[in-house]
Amino acid sequence: MSNFGLSGKMIAQPGKRDELAAILMEAASGMDAVADCQIYIVGVLPEEPDAIWITEVWDNAEAHQASLALEVTQAMIRRAKPLIAGFEQQVKHVPLGGKGMTAR
Amino acid sequence: MSNFGLSGKMIAQPGKRDELAAILMEAASGMDAVADCQIYIVGVLPEEPDAIWITEVWDNAEAHQASLALEVTQAMIRRAKPLIAGFEQQVKHVPLGGKGMTAR
Repeated sequence: MSNFGLSGKMIAQPGKRDELAAILMEAASGMDAVADCQIYIVGVLPEEPDAIWITEVWDNAEAHQASLALEVTQAMIRRAKPLIAGFEQQVKHVPLGGKGMTAR
Repeated sequence: MSNFGLSGKMIAQPGKRDELAAILMEAASGMDAVADCQIYIVGVLPEEPDAIWITEVWDNAEAHQASLALEVTQAMIRRAKPLIAGFEQQVKHVPLGGKGMTAR
C-alpha cells in the first residue's frame, strides 16, 4: 500500500491562529502514540497572520482516515472547529521516500 | 533561530517525472549526511502525471540556503534542470514542532 501525504493551509478566525496552533500541537503530541503516523508538523506562515501550514505523512490513506474516527481526534476537532475559518491549497500526495520517513 | 519549511510542486517536462523523481531521491539520500536537514521527502501526485511534491524541513533558512551552494547540490541541479518545466505553489513556512521533527 502506498504512503499517504497531506499538506495544506488552515485559516484561523481573525486573531485565533495561536490558539488554533496550540490545539494542533496537542494533536501532534498525540501522534507520538500513533505508529502509522510518520509526520505531523504544525507551521505558521510569516506573511499570513491567520494561516497555519500542516504537513502530514502516513503509512497509508486508510491509517489517516482511521485516525479521524478516533474519539481523541473527534474531541480535538470539536475544540478546533470554532476557530477555523477555512482550508486552502490541500495537497494529497504519495510520498516515495526520503529523509524523515520511517522505514517499514 | 526559527525552523524553516519549504513545500512545493515541481512540474517535470512531459514524460520525465520518474527520471526527475529519481534524481531528487538521490538528493534525498544525500541529506542523510546533512544534519541540519530534518526532512526531505519526494512525492508524486496521483492526478497530475508530471508533478512532484517536495516536503523539506530545515533547522533554519540559512542551512537551506547553504545547502544550495554545495557542489553536490549544484551538480544535482545541473542534471535535474533540463527535466524541469516549472514550479508551482511554493510555500515557505515556520514549523513550530510536531511529530517527525528533530529535537534540538
